[in-house]
Amino acid sequence: MPSPKPSDSAKVMEKIVSLAKRRGFVFQSSEIYGGLNGCWDYGPLGVEMLNNVKMAWWRNMTYRDNVEGIDASILMHPRVWEASGHVENFTDPMVDCRQCKARYRTDVLVDELSIKKKKEVLREIEPGTYEGQQPDPKIETAFGAFVSTEPGLARVIAALSCPACGNKGTFTEARKFNLMFKTFVGPVEDASAVVFLRPETAQGIFVNFLNVQSASRQKLPFGIAQIGKAFRNEINTKNFLFRTREFEQMEMQFFVKPGTDDEWFEYWRSERLKWFHDHGMRPEKLRWHQHPPDKLAHYAKDAYDVEYEFPFGWGEVEGVHNRTDYDLGRHEQFSGKSMKYFDEETKERFTPYVIETSIGASRSFMAFLVDAYHEEEAPTAEGGAEVRTVLRLHPKLAPIKAAVFPLVNRDGMPDLARKIEADLRSSFRVFYDDSGAVGRRYRRQDEVGTPFCITVDSQTLQDQTVTVRQRDSMAQERIPSDRVKDHLLRALA
Amino acid sequence: MPSPKPSDSAKVMEKIVSLAKRRGFVFQSSEIYGGLNGCWDYGPLGVEMLNNVKMAWWRNMTYRDNVEGIDASILMHPRVWEASGHVENFTDPMVDCRQCKARYRTDVLVDELSIKKKKEVLREIEPGTYEGQQPDPKIETAFGAFVSTEPGLARVIAALSCPACGNKGTFTEARKFNLMFKTFVGPVEDASAVVFLRPETAQGIFVNFLNVQSASRQKLPFGIAQIGKAFRNEINTKNFLFRTREFEQMEMQFFVKPGTDDEWFEYWRSERLKWFHDHGMRPEKLRWHQHPPDKLAHYAKDAYDVEYEFPFGWGEVEGVHNRTDYDLGRHEQFSGKSMKYFDEETKERFTPYVIETSIGASRSFMAFLVDAYHEEEAPTAEGGAEVRTVLRLHPKLAPIKAAVFPLVNRDGMPDLARKIEADLRSSFRVFYDDSGAVGRRYRRQDEVGTPFCITVDSQTLQDQTVTVRQRDSMAQERIPSDRVKDHLLRALA
Repeated sequence: MPSPKPSDSAKVMEKIVSLAKRRGFVFQSSEIYGGLNGCWDYGPLGVEMLNNVKMAWWRNMTYRDNVEGIDASILMHPRVWEASGHVENFTDPMVDCRQCKARYRTDVLVDELSIKKKKEVLREIEPGTYEGQQPDPKIETAFGAFVSTEPGLARVIAALSCPACGNKGTFTEARKFNLMFKTFVGPVEDASAVVFLRPETAQGIFVNFLNVQSASRQKLPFGIAQIGKAFRNEINTKNFLFRTREFEQMEMQFFVKPGTDDEWFEYWRSERLKWFHDHGMRPEKLRWHQHPPDKLAHYAKDAYDVEYEFPFGWGEVEGVHNRTDYDLGRHEQFSGKSMKYFDEETKERFTPYVIETSIGASRSFMAFLVDAYHEEEAPTAEGGAEVRTVLRLHPKLAPIKAAVFPLVNRDGMPDLARKIEADLRSSFRVFYDDSGAVGRRYRRQDEVGTPFCITVDSQTLQDQTVTVRQRDSMAQERIPSDRVKDHLLRALA
Repeated sequence: MPSPKPSDSAKVMEKIVSLAKRRGFVFQSSEIYGGLNGCWDYGPLGVEMLNNVKMAWWRNMTYRDNVEGIDASILMHPRVWEASGHVENFTDPMVDCRQCKARYRTDVLVDELSIKKKKEVLREIEPGTYEGQQPDPKIETAFGAFVSTEPGLARVIAALSCPACGNKGTFTEARKFNLMFKTFVGPVEDASAVVFLRPETAQGIFVNFLNVQSASRQKLPFGIAQIGKAFRNEINTKNFLFRTREFEQMEMQFFVKPGTDDEWFEYWRSERLKWFHDHGMRPEKLRWHQHPPDKLAHYAKDAYDVEYEFPFGWGEVEGVHNRTDYDLGRHEQFSGKSMKYFDEETKERFTPYVIETSIGASRSFMAFLVDAYHEEEAPTAEGGAEVRTVLRLHPKLAPIKAAVFPLVNRDGMPDLARKIEADLRSSFRVFYDDSGAVGRRYRRQDEVGTPFCITVDSQTLQDQTVTVRQRDSMAQERIPSDRVKDHLLRALA
């Protein structure tokens, strides 16, 4: 979990969320109805940037000779989630109040207690034991240790009052709450009609392994990549796009011969970190976190997260996992269909191991946005100084590639500017702006990360040159207007 | 509804579905578990082609100065669907058997009766009236007229036996079954937690109208476009990708001043038909169908469908609708927030009219696939003739842009071919094939619509030229190998 940071970091997050809304990157979903918790809508600039992130990943991952793409449906056969272990294991423990029917996640219930309340509870259920223990952090530690065991947690919860109705000792025993969203296919809403919205895209790849292999004539080792929505009924959504109920994943499962898995694991770790670097993310804001052996998921032999340092702390943006032959083996068991690969050279038949790279499209979108956000002092036209907000987005990720400004609204300048705009628009997302001082127009584009601003001025009317201004250096150069498109194509290649 | 066609058309559909699976365009969802009705997965070639269809639409629709894009969430606030009318109106009538609890859609129940059974039922409920009426079609017509009224339908259903348990007169009265998939947000599964999977993307645009307008500084008229998944709990899925439960839409809502709506309606009708033509669809396979006044949706002033002639008959692939100010007006009423536009020039405040273009990504994918499918006689290398299956896809839609073949596997040919492949791969999806006779390799690519095949032969080793073979004409030309990429870039521009 990301750890909380000082309040100026909270202010940075607030500024980014506010910019995201004002400039049309991200809106609250169903905002006019008060929003829907854990869901967000991408606005005009957001959808372009999100598409650019997805396209950058897709090209990097599938424009290889050993990775194929797929796009599986969100609704899948319910047996898929029995085989994957999600029906049984993808749960949070919850308790109900017998009195008022309120429902709570047990970890949230105990985490939210004040230190005073924690002391009281410990004194009550273990009289004498913790008496006089000071200072508070020691009690905190003792309480943490106590609730970390199942019987300890159960005793603490039995001693709590319900936050909703105030009654004490009214909680049921904890039971598992599944985080998959369920719905019903067909007209009858009974158990036989239940299907789930996929909580991860990976299973769509596993169940299609042999279909893809045979259609594409791939030989091991090869991978299957997919971009798509996934859904988790999180009780606590938080930190803007970081933890949401609806989100988009970009996953790749690479199928290898057992014994070669460690080597491929390292290969993909290195490839994936490089991808972030190549798209302009600051290396010092990225780090690896290896899952300790006792925290590994049931299917994993090894797992590393790529973490990004958000204003609210370090948080996972991507995971690289050695999933072994767990998933294919389980699907073979549950479907009764062989999921084995036949190696024509060695005549062996075996279940491949899987190295998985799993990145959140929405989360990495947010990391790119946060990483690009800068406030810096910049000179004004009048010789003073002002704060310039600039998104230093990699040009490939920037939602608008170029803005075109006619300097004044006369003498045929707008016509010429419109001509340049129309010429660029066939290849790029461009923006035309003819209102306000040119300095203000620059600032508007800096704030959304537009790498190039093209100004048409009176000199243009004489010699057909325009100025092209770079977002980061703010350097300007004059180039012939008929070479603008080639200039941009080269810079964005 | 598309009308049934002779059996050779059914065979064409079968061949296309079989090709789609064998070559990795479309697989049945969760196939190893017996599939999930109404859901399909796109394989390696399918996802490329689907992405190409979506990109072609996105560029055509949003790379304009008066259309913005968005990407709204699939889960929306439940009030959205009250305002849109879906909670009340998006329904099919269903009956239950009181005896065995089986559930049926009323229209399906009566449609599936044999002519003999229809006669029997009519004789029973209207003794004497239809006696001796011949031939059968007359009875068919009389029966159709009878069930087209609500009381008539109710009387027929009361006289039917349940197909499941065989008991007669056990059906409940018909009640409305809503076609929206529902799920529960948060841990409690009660009415207050119900949300729906969106049955159309349009509402995500309406609720964001003012957010988008203010962030993008657009003035009327302007549009908002979106591509995304939608879900309908169809009782009868059919015809491959034509009617599915999970599908993808590409919708654009164009906001105009009332009074200018008819003009913009015609503008968008013409733009949209042109899009199909520009992407290679045969004009004679497309037609307009205007909704008659008594069949118009409750929000519509006028509506035209673009229909494509599938092997199973004419079917809608896109709708162009004048939705008036219905949706914005309803959201204003239900949310209590103004959805009006303020015209700064005329100082008027009003609710815009909306012209909608709504195309199925999955359905148009299928139409492009069907339209491209050809079987033709082609000469073999041995001087005979064989049937060549070729997908005449527009190069922009083709999943693989070029294939590279080393003619024989010696003399450095594979090295050179791999070099050409690597060079192209950075810009295009390419395929490398070194196995089998070259004629067979051509056929494999023809079958998936690859527009260009590049062959490296012994002459290449001498003069660095390769042959480039066109898919449709099968004409070959020799060009220098270092000019292949430019050649393709020009052809695909």
